[in-house]
Amino acid sequence: MSTETRDTIFIGKKPLMAYVTSTLIQLANVPSVTIKARGLSISRAVDVAQIVSRKTENAGYSIGNVKIDSESLESEDGRTRNVSTIEIEVKKNTD
Amino acid sequence: MSTETRDTIFIGKKPLMAYVTSTLIQLANVPSVTIKARGLSISRAVDVAQIVSRKTENAGYSIGNVKIDSESLESEDGRTRNVSTIEIEVKKNTD
Repeated sequence: MSTETRDTIFIGKKPLMAYVTSTLIQLANVPSVTIKARGLSISRAVDVAQIVSRKTENAGYSIGNVKIDSESLESEDGRTRNVSTIEIEVKKNTD
Repeated sequence: MSTETRDTIFIGKKPLMAYVTSTLIQLANVPSVTIKARGLSISRAVDVAQIVSRKTENAGYSIGNVKIDSESLESEDGRTRNVSTIEIEVKKNTD
């Protein structure tokens, strides 16, 4: 893992607070971060975004656009399966 | 359960397609339906919205606003716990 600046956080199987920390670190460097997840991790992505926005309220960050979509994945048996995805923007308030 | 027109579908523990059917029935009656869920049901809410919007593409329905938030719940031991929530609007296209 490099420490380069990324503006996207992918939610996987790590403990929730690991993603909260990653997001907070990125927000210290870039004005807007997108939290992405698919399938069952979607609820965790919403948790991460909510915790981050509560923790940074005084610093002036809040939830921006929320986009839901789906992706087609080919499973091992060759069938196509649709998986839901979410993208949550956390951004500096413009005021 | 009454059959009155509601514009909100709450996602719980029923099979996914039960909510898809409920949403489609409501969309036949009202121009816009809001799919709501909290906690782990959030990923299922996104699934329902995605299936519904794919199935009604030709009828001119699509995903509208997506809002995430959190609610404070008091648990039995008296402690306050935050639960993430989502609201997904499925609406008739305006064009």
